[in-house]
Amino acid sequence: MSASAFATTPEPPYFAVIFTSQRTPEDRGYDVMAARMVELATAQPGFLGVESVRDAGGLGITVSYWRTRDDIRAWREHAEHRVAQETGKRVWYADYRLRICEVLRG
Amino acid sequence: MSASAFATTPEPPYFAVIFTSQRTPEDRGYDVMAARMVELATAQPGFLGVESVRDAGGLGITVSYWRTRDDIRAWREHAEHRVAQETGKRVWYADYRLRICEVLRG
Repeated sequence: MSASAFATTPEPPYFAVIFTSQRTPEDRGYDVMAARMVELATAQPGFLGVESVRDAGGLGITVSYWRTRDDIRAWREHAEHRVAQETGKRVWYADYRLRICEVLRG
Repeated sequence: MSASAFATTPEPPYFAVIFTSQRTPEDRGYDVMAARMVELATAQPGFLGVESVRDAGGLGITVSYWRTRDDIRAWREHAEHRVAQETGKRVWYADYRLRICEVLRG
């Protein structure tokens, strides 16, 4: 993996969204959506970077980094992202956890 | 993956350590150490849970959850964990990032 697997983030404080998820079997449009969401998030105000890993069993952790909590709120309300969130609950994820954090160090 | 892949955490605030890492090739004792560190961490005061994923390319994200920042400090200074940290820098990890966060929601 290249160094680009790591997000380059500024001095704290900044914010992180930790999304842990278990994928359902079969793609069902997931890969296209996931690539599109990264493309959209990257263009959002306050986006700082993302780190994402999924194993062969479908367990994944994605951490996105943001300048402020309002930037996270705006991304959560983004129309196309909302559609992806709803489809995720119904189709792509067997289970997930979402946590919003303030990064204090690192 | 069973539900135990997800940490059961209390109402915020609590704290998280996000450790993103790229493994070097070959095991070199890594798997034994990793299992031992989970065993030790689980027994530490303030430990709330852990979520961990590594892909076939060796990129991994481990998030451990803790009651307080002091609990994180104590774990960082744990003697056996310190040895693992030093060996990690020299042997197991090609690169890594460590971030300490306060969980605000989730």
